[in-house]
Amino acid sequence: MSEIAAQASPSSSPLAIVCGGGQFPSAVAYAVTRRGRRVFLFPIRGWADPEAVARFPHEWVSLGQLAASLRRMRAEGCRDIVFIGNVLRPTLWQLRLDFKTLRLLPRIMQAFKGGDDHLLTNVARMIEEQGLRLVGAHEVAPDILVPAGTLGRVAPSERDEADIARGLSLIATIGSFDIGQAVVVADNYVLAVEAAEGTDAMLARVAALRREGRVRIPNGVGVLVKGPKPGQDRRFDLPSIGPRTVEAVAAAGLAGIAVEAAGAITADLQRMIRAADTAGLFLVGAPSSRRERGP
Amino acid sequence: MSEIAAQASPSSSPLAIVCGGGQFPSAVAYAVTRRGRRVFLFPIRGWADPEAVARFPHEWVSLGQLAASLRRMRAEGCRDIVFIGNVLRPTLWQLRLDFKTLRLLPRIMQAFKGGDDHLLTNVARMIEEQGLRLVGAHEVAPDILVPAGTLGRVAPSERDEADIARGLSLIATIGSFDIGQAVVVADNYVLAVEAAEGTDAMLARVAALRREGRVRIPNGVGVLVKGPKPGQDRRFDLPSIGPRTVEAVAAAGLAGIAVEAAGAITADLQRMIRAADTAGLFLVGAPSSRRERGP
Repeated sequence: MSEIAAQASPSSSPLAIVCGGGQFPSAVAYAVTRRGRRVFLFPIRGWADPEAVARFPHEWVSLGQLAASLRRMRAEGCRDIVFIGNVLRPTLWQLRLDFKTLRLLPRIMQAFKGGDDHLLTNVARMIEEQGLRLVGAHEVAPDILVPAGTLGRVAPSERDEADIARGLSLIATIGSFDIGQAVVVADNYVLAVEAAEGTDAMLARVAALRREGRVRIPNGVGVLVKGPKPGQDRRFDLPSIGPRTVEAVAAAGLAGIAVEAAGAITADLQRMIRAADTAGLFLVGAPSSRRERGP
Repeated sequence: MSEIAAQASPSSSPLAIVCGGGQFPSAVAYAVTRRGRRVFLFPIRGWADPEAVARFPHEWVSLGQLAASLRRMRAEGCRDIVFIGNVLRPTLWQLRLDFKTLRLLPRIMQAFKGGDDHLLTNVARMIEEQGLRLVGAHEVAPDILVPAGTLGRVAPSERDEADIARGLSLIATIGSFDIGQAVVVADNYVLAVEAAEGTDAMLARVAALRREGRVRIPNGVGVLVKGPKPGQDRRFDLPSIGPRTVEAVAAAGLAGIAVEAAGAITADLQRMIRAADTAGLFLVGAPSSRRERGP
């Protein structure tokens, strides 16, 4: 790895971007090219948006052929590779089908034993064994990171600040169980913890609990708190927020959104801030003293 | 409190049972009378089952008049009081309406700040200030506690045992956040964490994730793990299981149910075991070294 890093400086080779769904792949591709670096996109069939990738050199791949694609990336002169965009997490399990050489099987089986993080870490190791370097989207396109501070017009109240602190603390506590990028805390009461269902489903659940009268905490109280699990490999899976998050938070009757500053990504921060302002929600990048694990 | 305990031995005075919904109130009343102690039931309007309480001396109460009812219980000669049965947790917040004397208000407000446990602890303290002693249903009717061991015909596999250990550990870890009587773990992967939604809703979520293909772990893998939060006041709120739990666990495609032995209650253990056997699920009372709080 150190040999590879010495061979090719980051900006002298095109960046390989493996693209899942959503707005992030093109946001990252634009941000990287704005910084003067070439990109080569590898949109994943069934996930990536054809229109978004059309403006960049690209070649469609399928999750089931990722091993072969890694060789293509090297042939295109790529040295660094980024994974970005939505690929339904459990679908990564389909990787089982690709790297099916006997040599790798035991390690893949091992990866499946330990939930997401272990799986991703092992995939990263395999990529590096192919002579590529896995980098985080936030490293090549830092513009997508949510910055620190109160970002919109609405500021959190003292009660909101206490809920934010409790949420960040809960996320840190359950991180060792490989869960919990997001929780909902309302007036010191933990309403919901995200595990396999995803943030949107968790917020819909809070909205339903309120609708059914099973949560009596008044509307406008409560916070969605998001942050990376401590020890999470940020090259693969930083939590993301977007205007749809704002809608779901508003529907859940919460007061606002707090993400760990520089610990979550958003494809278009200005649009996100406008959406929060329009909905009357606060949007906060909360400082954290927690350290990331890194490449 | 020690003075009261000295005044009246447990069996010399009738036991006051404040009854919520479900099967537990009558199960407890029967178990206590079988042991030779008289009972006096205070079924809560809108929650308790009229048929179930009809066989015992009783007087209907409303949540909003609990303070007055406490005086009635003393007049009936009761010294010990048990709370048992379903009362939708947030409905306890309606207590706000009853103990509205100025003297108590600050303490009630304080109770609302800290989630369930603080609320319940403060309610318990108020009851004791009325000269009554709050006891746990499991103390007067130990027959309702789920015992240790493999209780039905099906035994957990080694993988199930590992999932059970991980689930119990997660419950212990998040207990300080006043959440998590139940979690679902499948092949070392945490699929769901219960917060305000309740166990049935959590299991329905797992079933839906499987149906939608968002969880690819094969059917028949995974465990519902339930146990009291560490530090939970067991006089008020031990987790409960029943035949409906078995149905929901089967629908979620899990392999079985593990509860902390003597840390969960069931109204009819034999019926529960038969239901698990019929569904082909294991039912386990898992030993725990964790200590309970409280008298």
